[in-house]
Amino acid sequence: MDELEIDAVAEADLDEPVLVEGLPGVGHVGKLAVDHLLEELEGESTLVRRIYSREFPPQVSVEDGVADLTCAEIYAVSPPDGRDLLLLTGDHQAQTNAGHYVLTSAFLDVAEEFGASEVYALGGVPTGELIEEYAVVGAVSEASLREPLEDAGVEFRENEPAGGIVGVSGLLLGLGERRGFEAACLMGETSGYLVDPKSARAVLEVLETTLAFELDYESLDERADEMEDVIGKIQEMEQQQQGMDVPTDDDLRYIG
Amino acid sequence: MDELEIDAVAEADLDEPVLVEGLPGVGHVGKLAVDHLLEELEGESTLVRRIYSREFPPQVSVEDGVADLTCAEIYAVSPPDGRDLLLLTGDHQAQTNAGHYVLTSAFLDVAEEFGASEVYALGGVPTGELIEEYAVVGAVSEASLREPLEDAGVEFRENEPAGGIVGVSGLLLGLGERRGFEAACLMGETSGYLVDPKSARAVLEVLETTLAFELDYESLDERADEMEDVIGKIQEMEQQQQGMDVPTDDDLRYIG
Amino acid sequence: MDELEIDAVAEADLDEPVLVEGLPGVGHVGKLAVDHLLEELEGESTLVRRIYSREFPPQVSVEDGVADLTCAEIYAVSPPDGRDLLLLTGDHQAQTNAGHYVLTSAFLDVAEEFGASEVYALGGVPTGELIEEYAVVGAVSEASLREPLEDAGVEFRENEPAGGIVGVSGLLLGLGERRGFEAACLMGETSGYLVDPKSARAVLEVLETTLAFELDYESLDERADEMEDVIGKIQEMEQQQQGMDVPTDDDLRYIG
Amino acid sequence: MDELEIDAVAEADLDEPVLVEGLPGVGHVGKLAVDHLLEELEGESTLVRRIYSREFPPQVSVEDGVADLTCAEIYAVSPPDGRDLLLLTGDHQAQTNAGHYVLTSAFLDVAEEFGASEVYALGGVPTGELIEEYAVVGAVSEASLREPLEDAGVEFRENEPAGGIVGVSGLLLGLGERRGFEAACLMGETSGYLVDPKSARAVLEVLETTLAFELDYESLDERADEMEDVIGKIQEMEQQQQGMDVPTDDDLRYIG
Repeated sequence: MDELEIDAVAEADLDEPVLVEGLPGVGHVGKLAVDHLLEELEGESTLVRRIYSREFPPQVSVEDGVADLTCAEIYAVSPPDGRDLLLLTGDHQAQTNAGHYVLTSAFLDVAEEFGASEVYALGGVPTGELIEEYAVVGAVSEASLREPLEDAGVEFRENEPAGGIVGVSGLLLGLGERRGFEAACLMGETSGYLVDPKSARAVLEVLETTLAFELDYESLDERADEMEDVIGKIQEMEQQQQGMDVPTDDDLRYIG
Repeated sequence: MDELEIDAVAEADLDEPVLVEGLPGVGHVGKLAVDHLLEELEGESTLVRRIYSREFPPQVSVEDGVADLTCAEIYAVSPPDGRDLLLLTGDHQAQTNAGHYVLTSAFLDVAEEFGASEVYALGGVPTGELIEEYAVVGAVSEASLREPLEDAGVEFRENEPAGGIVGVSGLLLGLGERRGFEAACLMGETSGYLVDPKSARAVLEVLETTLAFELDYESLDERADEMEDVIGKIQEMEQQQQGMDVPTDDDLRYIG
Repeated sequence: MDELEIDAVAEADLDEPVLVEGLPGVGHVGKLAVDHLLEELEGESTLVRRIYSREFPPQVSVEDGVADLTCAEIYAVSPPDGRDLLLLTGDHQAQTNAGHYVLTSAFLDVAEEFGASEVYALGGVPTGELIEEYAVVGAVSEASLREPLEDAGVEFRENEPAGGIVGVSGLLLGLGERRGFEAACLMGETSGYLVDPKSARAVLEVLETTLAFELDYESLDERADEMEDVIGKIQEMEQQQQGMDVPTDDDLRYIG
Repeated sequence: MDELEIDAVAEADLDEPVLVEGLPGVGHVGKLAVDHLLEELEGESTLVRRIYSREFPPQVSVEDGVADLTCAEIYAVSPPDGRDLLLLTGDHQAQTNAGHYVLTSAFLDVAEEFGASEVYALGGVPTGELIEEYAVVGAVSEASLREPLEDAGVEFRENEPAGGIVGVSGLLLGLGERRGFEAACLMGETSGYLVDPKSARAVLEVLETTLAFELDYESLDERADEMEDVIGKIQEMEQQQQGMDVPTDDDLRYIG
């Protein structure tokens, strides 16, 4: 196998589609959002490309005994209303620094092939505490993209995210800009400790406005309710621990 | 030395052989199984290929003062009954993620060269506790391969192994499928803490059925008895520790 | 994206310029020094090259919501007095050992392109304690470069720095010498625990002498005063802790 | 800089020389031995090759302020008595697994260029305790090389070294054998905690016999006496600690 292999599973005729990326990351916000889009737009979507790479972990996933080699998948979607989409999803990020550059370049190649010149990278930004109001923080490849996103409720903050944006989401902006894409990263605020469907909904609501489509959130809200139960139990435990030791980093492991 | 060098030690004329892989892994189940096959079929087997690679550790093993460079070995076997085999064994896995892709591709190249289109990857699946009944869990490269394996007693479970299959065993399915191989992974249940000859026997008994040969298990059973003694001593120690601290991860280090 | 991409942002006609490097490192001394040079010589400086590489972290920085892909930047400067300069700055070092070789080679390529044959690598040398008198320790690519630097107050010590010089600063000397550059590394003494503007000033004062220009230090001194306040508070805390536990390595984390 | 650059510093006309390798490793035994050879045979030795590589740490060493890029050096030696030699020394091993393969291949290229077909890799084998009688353990690339080494006092043991031989020393046997070299590794027993000149002498005494030259050991013995003093102090401390806590791994850090 070469460093990178792109399988053309099917073709699709799209009209100036927008690439929307949702690989795993903080709070699984980006992945939850894109997977929800795929679920809701199932009737209008076609798997068009699979991207295999030595930069992914050397691993198959197994479902009902049938193995699938780790890859990223790109779906072509022509929703009844709103813009055409290319949805990028997968179970893994690259395993090396250089690998993020290799994979992001491949994703942009596919986007270009289908005529896309706009990119949304979806993700989460960790706040370290449970969220009441889910703000969506933005970053853009060029300043002119800020205003329409601010109109859709996205917040641009002076020094956030403080450490920059790492991985495919960051490079879609950085490499995208170098190749002439208009790219934005939408990051839902999230505690960072939990898989966060509410944060994913906040991000999707921005997309509804900017891409002019409408979504049903029933299944995502159900998942959010399940997480609420988990949060309720954690808060109960925290109250019982008051006056006791403060939780260590180990207590705050990822739950989802 | 190049990234990969395949030495043609000998040639062999095989009839649609099956590649059977047994590199080190959980419980050393795969390696024990293939090494037992090699021992039992010694008269009918020929070392045909050695695969050297920079992806292996930079290391020689030493026996009676004579050094051997780390490599994987493939033996051609024509058993008196049953299918022709290509047995893949070795002392090491690749040392990087990308290395697993490189080595698995090389193994499939050799398999193809000898006319093989079927692969069995042998290994163990950790249960975290000592095993009474040794089930064999399966995963396959395509759904049609499930039924004959189920008939041979292999279990296919909805969400197992939960983390997928990592390393050469996983990639033999994943890369194999992409190259047109029919590939199955047979994973003997094993505690994960001990070298497990009983689990290796359970896996081999499946192969006896599917590949129509017969094996003697005396030497493997002897090794299993030795491990039983080790297990007995561990259980004794555990009973003495009742009411004491539970064992930590460090207490459960690999014993073999 | 290739392993390395050098963007020609602008051209400049320089007269035997000197490359001055200030990437992040011990006490941020080199970066502080070059960034101060850039600030003071802003009117005479032009950004000429951006160097992008897979060897940098896969990351964008974000300022006011606008993302910038990690890169190193080289500015051409023609100061009213003194030598022409090429100033090399950036926010990151390479992420792998081999990456330091790749990036340093690229920096020397650019220097050569602009006609430079001399290099100053600026950095800090950690002493482990707070500094009263800021000495500047030197290392050179060939012995004949020592005397003029000694005349400018640089100290050359028998066995310092004991562990050699690691990263781009070291390789500018090592690879530079192999390509015919005259290269010197100027290392300001610094505690190693704090961002150290005073050490940066000590290094710049050497450059003033050797490159015959004059600098205003007001903004750097202001930053030094801020750090003095931080140091004062740390010393206060230390006095309160006398008779208590000695600080561990963890107490001495980088502050800046 | 390329992945590997070999500088031809000088040429030498050697008669079937033997490559003797002494890079840093356990107890610095190999490096001490080859550096002592170089010191004793200084009048008859010429630096012929420097090997630079991205696989070495990105680092310069500094002596009296003058920087030298990390490299390995090969000296040609024509001693008054005994065989011609190629002495390989340096301050660093490769930094990655694949790097050990790259560098060892380069060393064998140089050896071949000078007409060598025999290799001695020198090193130490850790025993975990202080040594009274310094045995030298051997490993060879082919069984026929054992007998002459046994006659020179080298011990060949059934299962030692248990973990094989890692790094350049191991690969000189493994890759050397594949390229037609006769290669032996001589490993002086050493505690593993101390730089061990006595172990280096034991190894050199074997070479005196097999390569038919004579060495003066005054300077090496002086260094051994210094280490004896260190050992004496450690043993004193150990006696004072009797009845106290056993030393942890951290107490047994490398001293030299």
